[in-house]
Amino acid sequence: MNSLTINTPEPHGGKLVNGVRNNVIVKKEYPALEIEPEVDMGIVIRNVYREIMSIAYGFFSPLDRFMTSNEVERVLKERRLLDGWIFPFPIIFDVNPEKIRGLSIREGDSVLLKLKGNPFAMLEVEEIWKFNPREIADRTFGTPDKNPDAVKRAFDHKHPGWSIYAKMSGVALGGKVYIINEPKFKAVYERFWYPPEKSRTEFAKRGWRTVIAHQTRNVPHMGHEHLMKQAAFMGDTEPCNGILVNAIVGSKRLGDFVDEAILEGHEAVDKFGYINPARHLVSMTLWDMRYGGPLESILHGIVRQNMGCTHHMFGRDHAATGDYYDPYSTQALWENGLPSFGLNASPFDMDKGLKIRPVNMQEFWYCPVCGEIAYSRTCAHGDRAERFSGSFIRGLIAEGIKPPPIIFRPEVYDIIVKWWREFRYPFVNKRYLEIKEKELEVDIEAK
Amino acid sequence: MNSLTINTPEPHGGKLVNGVRNNVIVKKEYPALEIEPEVDMGIVIRNVYREIMSIAYGFFSPLDRFMTSNEVERVLKERRLLDGWIFPFPIIFDVNPEKIRGLSIREGDSVLLKLKGNPFAMLEVEEIWKFNPREIADRTFGTPDKNPDAVKRAFDHKHPGWSIYAKMSGVALGGKVYIINEPKFKAVYERFWYPPEKSRTEFAKRGWRTVIAHQTRNVPHMGHEHLMKQAAFMGDTEPCNGILVNAIVGSKRLGDFVDEAILEGHEAVDKFGYINPARHLVSMTLWDMRYGGPLESILHGIVRQNMGCTHHMFGRDHAATGDYYDPYSTQALWENGLPSFGLNASPFDMDKGLKIRPVNMQEFWYCPVCGEIAYSRTCAHGDRAERFSGSFIRGLIAEGIKPPPIIFRPEVYDIIVKWWREFRYPFVNKRYLEIKEKELEVDIEAK
Repeated sequence: MNSLTINTPEPHGGKLVNGVRNNVIVKKEYPALEIEPEVDMGIVIRNVYREIMSIAYGFFSPLDRFMTSNEVERVLKERRLLDGWIFPFPIIFDVNPEKIRGLSIREGDSVLLKLKGNPFAMLEVEEIWKFNPREIADRTFGTPDKNPDAVKRAFDHKHPGWSIYAKMSGVALGGKVYIINEPKFKAVYERFWYPPEKSRTEFAKRGWRTVIAHQTRNVPHMGHEHLMKQAAFMGDTEPCNGILVNAIVGSKRLGDFVDEAILEGHEAVDKFGYINPARHLVSMTLWDMRYGGPLESILHGIVRQNMGCTHHMFGRDHAATGDYYDPYSTQALWENGLPSFGLNASPFDMDKGLKIRPVNMQEFWYCPVCGEIAYSRTCAHGDRAERFSGSFIRGLIAEGIKPPPIIFRPEVYDIIVKWWREFRYPFVNKRYLEIKEKELEVDIEAK
Repeated sequence: MNSLTINTPEPHGGKLVNGVRNNVIVKKEYPALEIEPEVDMGIVIRNVYREIMSIAYGFFSPLDRFMTSNEVERVLKERRLLDGWIFPFPIIFDVNPEKIRGLSIREGDSVLLKLKGNPFAMLEVEEIWKFNPREIADRTFGTPDKNPDAVKRAFDHKHPGWSIYAKMSGVALGGKVYIINEPKFKAVYERFWYPPEKSRTEFAKRGWRTVIAHQTRNVPHMGHEHLMKQAAFMGDTEPCNGILVNAIVGSKRLGDFVDEAILEGHEAVDKFGYINPARHLVSMTLWDMRYGGPLESILHGIVRQNMGCTHHMFGRDHAATGDYYDPYSTQALWENGLPSFGLNASPFDMDKGLKIRPVNMQEFWYCPVCGEIAYSRTCAHGDRAERFSGSFIRGLIAEGIKPPPIIFRPEVYDIIVKWWREFRYPFVNKRYLEIKEKELEVDIEAK
C-alpha cells in the first residue's frame, strides 16, 4: 500500500441508505395506492416501483425519499439535494390528483404503496405539491438556449426521458419512502441483484480494491468487451482488480435488446472465459433510463460509487439517445464541469461531489490491418476500420444472419438466440413490453 | 483540468543537468585519458563513454559527476546521492592505476577524456580513491543473505552487471564530468536521440500531458506491442496521451537482438500504424545494462521521469537476466519498497524520491480461444494460452522460419531481416560486438 493506492470509496453522502423495513405493521386506515406503469405513445416509459427499489436498497444514497418541491428546485438549479450532495435528476412521485382526493391523502399521512396488488412500500407524505410537467422536463434535461454547452436541440416526445417528466400528472407526493415487503426477483434476475451493501461485501470477499464500472443496456458485442477489458487497465499502481458490469434494467424502447439477453449475454463473457470471472461481476440496477447524457452519467457515478466502484468508464455519447446532447458533453463534464447546469467543476472536484473516478474513453473498432479490435487513438488505420454499428448488427440479427465472431462471441450470440426463442422475436416488441410490464422483474407476496 | 489531472513531472532533483559545454579551451597540459571498452570473458561489458553521455545530457539528473567514495558509500547504504536524491547504482570512473601514475593525475586536476582518439569530455578530479571491486559488486546488487526480500542467488561472472563492477580496477576518479566536444550520432541512431530537454519539448509540442514509458532491449513481438498498448490505458481521466519507447542502447550479450533492429523494429510499429505515430515515440538511452532488476527499475524511472514521462510500465522480471532476483521484486519495490536495500517505501513515496508512477503489469499471451493477444488477468484460458518465449522466437528466426503474425508484425520481422543481411547473422555475435565497440553509436570530430 502506497500513496497511489486507491481504495473503495465511501458511499455518496457518507452512508448507505437502508430503506428496507421488514417489521412494519400496516394499519388498515392507511390510504393505499396501487403502483401503475406510465405510458407515452402506447409504450410504457416508467414504473416508479423501480425507483422505490433503487432508493430503498441504497443505490441512490443519500436519497431516501421522493423529492419535495424545494428539493426539486435545488436539484434543477444546482443539481444538489437539500443536504448539498450532488444529484442530477428530480425524483418525483406523481399521482393522479383524483386519487389523492378520492383517498383524502393529506400531508403527514403514511401512504401504503401496493405492487401487483400486494403491500410493497410506505410513503410518508411530507408535502403534496403541484408543478408544470413540461417546465420540469425542460429544466431537467436542459434546452439549447440555456445549456448551449451540452444541449444541441430541444427535447420532445421522441426522447423517452423527457417524456417521463412531461407526461407526469403535475401533482406529487414528497417524502420518505421505504419497502415493507421485499419483492422476490424472478430467477433470471436474482443472481444479478447486488445492492450496494452486497456488492461491497462481494468486492471485499474477492479482494478487489479497485473496480471499474461499465454501464450497459446492450448485449455486449466485441467492441463493448474490448472497451471493458481495456478501460480496466486504468487503476492505481496496477490495472483495476475488478470490472463491474451494471445493467440498467427497466422500461425498454422498441428494438432494444431484452433485459434477459443483456444480463445473460454479459454473463456469457465471463462464463466462457473471455473475461476471467475472478475479475468480472455482472449486476443490475432498476431504473427507467432518462437518457440524460451527462446528467445520467452523474446518476451512474452515484450508483456505482455506492456499489463500491473506484472508477467509471464513460464513452462517447454516454447514456444518450438521438442527437439532443453533444456526444462529448459527458466527458467534458467529468473533465471540467458543465456550468450551465450549475456544475462548475468535475463532479469529482465538487464539494459533496463524487469520489468515483472518471475514465473517459474513445472508440473501439475492428481493424483488418491490425487484425484485432483496436482503440481509435492507438490504431492509425481509421480509413480501413470497421466500426461497430448497433443498427447494422441488429439488422444482421433480424435477417437471421449469425454475426461473425469479430462482432459477437458465439456464446453471447447463443444467448440472443435463447431469448429470441423465448419471446419469438430477437428484440423488444409490443408483446415483450406487455409481458414485461405485467410480470415486472419481481414477484411480491401477499402480506 | 481537474484534480485528477497528471502533468509532466519535474526532473529528478528539480533541474536537468546540462553537462555539454561547447566553448571550453583544452589546455595542452591537461592529462589525457583515452576511453577504452572494458571486457570480461572475451565480451565487451561496458564503455564508460555511454555513462558520460547520459550524465552530461541530463538522463541521470541530478547526477552530474562520477561518484566519490563517500557518494558511493551513501548509494550503497541508502541508494541516495549526497544531496539525498534516490539513485540506485554507484557510477564509477575506474582507471588503471598505472595510467594515473604515468600521467601524474592528482586530486584537483582536470583530465581530458578522449573518445576514438579525439577530445570528448573533461573530468574534474575531486578524489582519487580505492575500492574492492568484488565487494562493491556484491553490495551494488545484493546478496541472498543480506537481501532475502529480492535476491535469490549469489551473483557471479555470468551476470554482466555484476561483472562490470567486479572487473573494475579498484582505483577511481571521482568528480564532475562534462562533454566539451559533442559526438555526432550515426544515421541509424540519430533520429532516436531525445535527451530529456528535447523529449520534454517534443511532448509539449505534441500536446502530451501523460506519457507512459516502455523499457526495451528487444525487437517488439506482439506481446510487447500489446503490453505497450494496454498499459497505456493507465492515465489520469483518460488513457495516457503518449507512449515513449526508450531502448537501452549499449553493450550486448551474445544472442541479443542488435540495437539497430531494436530501434527500427519499434519504429516499424508506429510507421505501419499498429500504434498511431501521433501517440508513440521511439527513443534511446546510452547505458550498459546492469540487469539490476528492482535497482535497474529505479534508474529507468529516473531516466524516463527526466525525459518527462508520468508513468512507467514494469512487467514481471523487469530488467533482469538469469534467476538472481525474485521476478516480482521490481513490482514489490514500487508497491512497498525493498527495506533490505534501504528503500523503506515505494520510490514514489520517498522523500527526494521519484515522481513517475509505476504501472505494474502481468503477462500477455496469445489465446486461441479469445483469438487475440490476451492479458493473463483477463483471459481465463490459461491452460490453452501460448506464451511468448524469447528463446523459442529466436530459435524460429535462427532456423530461417518467418514467425507467424501472432508473434511478429510482418514489417517488424522485415527489420530483423534487414539487419540480418547487414550483419550476416540475425543476432549479436562476436563479429557484431567487434564492429560495435570499434564504431560505437557516434563519431567525434577532431578538435
